[in-house]
Amino acid sequence: MIETAEVIRNGVNVSKLGQMISVIRHHPELARFTFRARNRWNTGARSLATVDGFYGTSRELRHDNPLTIQSDEPAALLGEDTGMNPVEIAMASLSACMTTTLAYKAAGMGLEFESIESEFEGDIDARGLTGVSSDTRTGYQEIRVKFYVKGDGDPKTIEELIKHSPVYDSLTNPVTIRIEVAKV
Amino acid sequence: MIETAEVIRNGVNVSKLGQMISVIRHHPELARFTFRARNRWNTGARSLATVDGFYGTSRELRHDNPLTIQSDEPAALLGEDTGMNPVEIAMASLSACMTTTLAYKAAGMGLEFESIESEFEGDIDARGLTGVSSDTRTGYQEIRVKFYVKGDGDPKTIEELIKHSPVYDSLTNPVTIRIEVAKV
Repeated sequence: MIETAEVIRNGVNVSKLGQMISVIRHHPELARFTFRARNRWNTGARSLATVDGFYGTSRELRHDNPLTIQSDEPAALLGEDTGMNPVEIAMASLSACMTTTLAYKAAGMGLEFESIESEFEGDIDARGLTGVSSDTRTGYQEIRVKFYVKGDGDPKTIEELIKHSPVYDSLTNPVTIRIEVAKV
Repeated sequence: MIETAEVIRNGVNVSKLGQMISVIRHHPELARFTFRARNRWNTGARSLATVDGFYGTSRELRHDNPLTIQSDEPAALLGEDTGMNPVEIAMASLSACMTTTLAYKAAGMGLEFESIESEFEGDIDARGLTGVSSDTRTGYQEIRVKFYVKGDGDPKTIEELIKHSPVYDSLTNPVTIRIEVAKV
């Protein structure tokens, strides 16, 4: 039995990452993931999203424990402020996705980071959701992102890596969403 | 002094909601919100998103307490499974947003609900992010949503209300995202 040392960079197991990419290249079906969530409304602005498992690498997989996010609205939006509101959660997901994407992609390229911090802000005009203006979108009009990175790589390369983020893609390019409603 | 009873429906203060809409109609600047988040990378797939405050109703507002979401990846994606991964957080945000939008919009229309539950699933092909396939998007290819609603309203009306969700809009229609990167 021959053991080869595993390469860990940015906390990412680059040896396993390379193996995964090699496997996917030859078995594209192993690249198909289906992520899942469920949600239960409490009352008013409060709801609880739960994630148990997902489909990936050709099988059903479970998280070690169910993972939950409580959502609410602040008092200014008639809630009780017990959790981020939904658009703040969306921004949190973008922040996490850009950060992880950068750490992983850079690790694969040999770039090491000491720290990655970032700031996000996004504009919403409540005339959209309230129906006061029919030509105002309900969602984000623009999101501005600033990354502060300590370590290897020039800003342009880092920006290009960040743009591979799946949530960045999902927000900047249209995603098809199919909705079914059942009365129970 | 004349006191009028406040109407609460679906846990939403419909009287205050109506006042808010009336105020926005006459003072559109009060409808402008800017939401904010910051993120700090830990290592590997782990990062922490924090939300402290936001701009709305023409002033800076703070949450009662800083709100955080820890993100990670499951073992199958080389993480330690200490939190939802970024695309699961995005799905959680969609689920919360559709739920809150439905509860609020319906409350304003006089529709009452006993329960709202929902299920979400979305497909991602890892050949995109890994760079194995250059014509595969990195983000969600499709998201499927099922709502189970107990209470007033027919399925078609409920579906139309759900579609006002700001996160639904942000995913189904392109959002402009501007990125700056600074080395520190």
